[in-house]
This record gives sequence, C-alpha cells and structure tokens, in this order.
Amino acid sequence: MRTPPRSVELTRVTEWEAGSVRSVQDSLAAEAPLEIRIGAVPLTVTMRTPGDDLELAAGFLLTEGIIESADQLAGLRSAVPENGAKSNVVEAEIRDSEFAVGDLQRNFFAASSCGICGKASIEAIRRRGLRPPDRAFKIDPEILCGMPDAIRAEQAVFARTGGLHAAALFDEHGALLALREDIGRHNAVDKVVGWAVLNSMLPLNRHVLMVSGRGGFEIVQKALAAGIPVLASVSAPSSLAVKLARELGMTLIGFLRGKRFVIYSGEFRCIPYKEHEQVIKN
Amino acid sequence: MRTPPRSVELTRVTEWEAGSVRSVQDSLAAEAPLEIRIGAVPLTVTMRTPGDDLELAAGFLLTEGIIESADQLAGLRSAVPENGAKSNVVEAEIRDSEFAVGDLQRNFFAASSCGICGKASIEAIRRRGLRPPDRAFKIDPEILCGMPDAIRAEQAVFARTGGLHAAALFDEHGALLALREDIGRHNAVDKVVGWAVLNSMLPLNRHVLMVSGRGGFEIVQKALAAGIPVLASVSAPSSLAVKLARELGMTLIGFLRGKRFVIYSGEFRCIPYKEHEQVIKN
Repeated sequence: MRTPPRSVELTRVTEWEAGSVRSVQDSLAAEAPLEIRIGAVPLTVTMRTPGDDLELAAGFLLTEGIIESADQLAGLRSAVPENGAKSNVVEAEIRDSEFAVGDLQRNFFAASSCGICGKASIEAIRRRGLRPPDRAFKIDPEILCGMPDAIRAEQAVFARTGGLHAAALFDEHGALLALREDIGRHNAVDKVVGWAVLNSMLPLNRHVLMVSGRGGFEIVQKALAAGIPVLASVSAPSSLAVKLARELGMTLIGFLRGKRFVIYSGEFRCIPYKEHEQVIKN
Repeated sequence: MRTPPRSVELTRVTEWEAGSVRSVQDSLAAEAPLEIRIGAVPLTVTMRTPGDDLELAAGFLLTEGIIESADQLAGLRSAVPENGAKSNVVEAEIRDSEFAVGDLQRNFFAASSCGICGKASIEAIRRRGLRPPDRAFKIDPEILCGMPDAIRAEQAVFARTGGLHAAALFDEHGALLALREDIGRHNAVDKVVGWAVLNSMLPLNRHVLMVSGRGGFEIVQKALAAGIPVLASVSAPSSLAVKLARELGMTLIGFLRGKRFVIYSGEFRCIPYKEHEQVIKN
C-alpha cells in the first residue's frame, strides 16, 4: 500500500485558461509495455503502469486460466536488461498446467480492450470451465457503501495524474486488503489478484473486488477465475458482463456511490430480505 | 448521427438506496465480440458495442497500419450467420497492401487495453513509419473549448447507460462531423476514423479528434495513422502518449473542460502568440 516508484513521470506542459497561457510542471501516469513470458516464450505484451510487475504477471496467468493455483507457479522473475535499463519483461515458470506452449501458436494477432482477445469467441471463455463462486457468502450493504471512501483514502497516484484505474480487494468486514492502480483497468485487477496469488490466499471466496471504472465482461471473467463472489464498480456494467455474472451466479454491483447501488446479478448475497420489502417499479 | 440500433439492452435490476430496495428497468451498454477477417482468415477479435461494424473494421485496418488508404480496401461486408442471428463478423478484402497473411502468424496470444498488443515493442510501432501530421494546421483555443458541449449535445447512449466512451471528429471551424460511442475507447476512435475512410476523407489533416477518456498511447498512434494533427481529451494523457506525440509533433491536449485545457505537445498549433505572453511558473 504505497506509491509504486515508477508510476508517475514529471514533465513541463502549457496551460491555457481563458486566453492566458503559462508553463507548468505536471505529473503524468507512466505507461510502458510489459512482456510476459513462459520460460523464454513470449506470451503477451500489455501496456501497463510500471510497478508491481510480478503481481501483474501472476494475476494475468491466473485470471487468463494459464494456471489455476499458486502451486502451479514454479518461478517468477523480472528479466533485467544487460544495459541496466528498467525491466519490461517478466519470465514465469509453470508446472502441472494443462496449458501447453503449443497453445501459443495462434493464427492471428489481436487488439482489444479486453482479456478475451485472441480467443475465438465467448464460447471459448465458457469452455474454460469457470466455476460459480461461493453462494453462502453474504455482504452487508452498509459495508459495500463504505468501500469507495476507503479507496479514495488510499489512492496515491490517481489524485495527481487523473489518469488511472483502481482495483481494490476487501474482506467480508469491509477492510481494504490491497489496492492497485494502473492505466489499464484489467491490469489493476490482475495486480490485485496477483498479490493474492503470491500470498497464497486463493480462492478469494469471502472477498469483494471493487473497480473504479466500468464492470466489463473481462473484469467479471477475471474475478470469477479468482473465485471472487462479489464485484462492485462505481459505474455501469456492460450487457455481456451482466450475462456472464448471471450465468455463474456472481453478485455484480454498479453505481456504488454514497448510500446507493444497483444490483445486476446475485442479489441474494446482499439483499437477504428482498422478498419481503421489494417494491416493483417500472 | 443516430443511436445505433444494437447499442442498448434493457434488463431488470435491483436498486438499493439507504436500506430500501426496489426492482427497476435499466439500460445496459451492449457488448459483444466482433471478429475481423481478411478474406476468410481471422485477424482479430475485439469486444465492442454492436453497430457501425463496417466502420469499426475499416478504421481498425487503417489505424493498425494494415491499409494506408481507402483505395486498398477492395471490399467490406458483414458475414450474416445462416441461422439469421446478428452478425459478429466482418470480412475485408484488401489489395496492394504490404501486409501479408503470413504476418498473421504470431507466436503468442495477446490481452491488452491497447492497440499495440501482439507487437513486440514500441520499436515495432516506430518502425511502422507513422508520419508527422501537418504542421501548418492551426486551431483556435476558443473553438477547442466548444467541443465538449458539442459532444454532450449529440451523445445518445452515454446518458442512458453511463458506460460508454465517445470519440468525435471536428473540422477546423469546430463543426462536429462524426461522433461514435463504444465500450472500448479505441473502438470509438476506429469507428470515427472508419467513417472517414469509407467517405474518402483521408488524410484528416485539418481535423481535431476528441475522446471522452484518457489520451493513451494507442489513441495517439491511431490518430497519427489517420493524419490527425490535434488530439484532445477531457482527462489526462499517459507518459507514453506524450512521448509519442512529441516525437511526431502532434498537438496533444488534456483536461479540456470549460475555458481551460492543458497542452502536452505541439502547442504551436493553438498558441501562436506563446513567445510573447508566456508566464513561467513551477
């Protein structure tokens, strides 16, 4: 829970305001490519906020289904260039994984905002065999309402740069366990999940994941891979995110602001008294 | 300039507010995968807001450097499934392109929030030979300040779903030429650029592109591929976006709100009198 050392860069910029112009020093969210390798074989290149690279790689391997537990991660290291430059490569060693290097041979290159690019279809995601999260877990709505404030109190980089997404992991009592920020929403999620992987905490079946932006399909998918039963965001989910959450019985919450939120799926985990107090409105 | 027919889905959700619970009808931003093919060969799968699929494909082909002009696009069609379902596939025919289907053979799969995933490094982007945009183009700061309002007046889906990014193309007089919305920021840009490709308007060397979110590296790259000299956003750019914009002399503007904005690169296009009125401040 600290500012990653490489996440901000300073630069001189020009401010225009109602016709007057001045030169000011500004903080930028750092952005650099990270290549994740299995052994020496390149697996993916992602644009990320530098820092917490091992967590990002560990989380990516888990949420993309390449490993299913920390046990399968035999090694993880940053490859430091010979010229002493900053490392933008993480090499992972995996064992007992059904994932074969042959799977890396694909007939296309990909560009997408989601974790499913490079895969043929939604069906491929479904075939991954994501399991429904723990149905016994419940969360108090009042505890949910406290989460945005807890994140704001911890956020380091965002306030200075205005350019980062955050993902935060909470326990069932609303305690903030880990917060990570990144220019990519799914990277922030991978970093938080990777932190849990490296601390042998999986499955995260009594936890809530909160993200700063939209709850998209790929975020639901990543949370499910980690066993997370409740995903909350301050904004709206997409239709496909709702579809996947409903299909697997995950609790999906949007517009979590102040004393209000919207439940898109799995309301039984936070509205146990629903049957009695429900008011129907169109 | 209309609401795409497939961009919103209705669903019933549960609202929790200060302890009271009600069931309401909600609009969700639709999300579905689109596969872009060259002939019959799959090129990429992207998660997008359905609608304007041909524009998205045309824009993607141009901004990713697969074609460099509309002339190279010999055909473009949605592949409609035999069962009459909605199409999630676009097939493009290209000609006289240096891009070979052999280039599709890559040794990894990719997941990223950016348009450069699947490429080995920033160097690969540089090697693409993006050209500096027109240095003679100037834009009046007052015209820039009117752009956010013009977008808000046109935005259809965002207000209802709260979940979409927008990209808008303006001419030098501040007239809004095209606005597209998508759950993916880069898809919204590809749709706008694709609209221009299909209308034979390239290069867009007397135009301003405005995006709703962060001005990241991949957005700068896509704008440069279309010849756009000025890129503006309501939020902060990343460090790498600024680096690339400065390297190629693009004007990059952030925090465009009300009567204020910040110029990160290429200020000569909108601050012609800079030398005389500049005030230095730390």
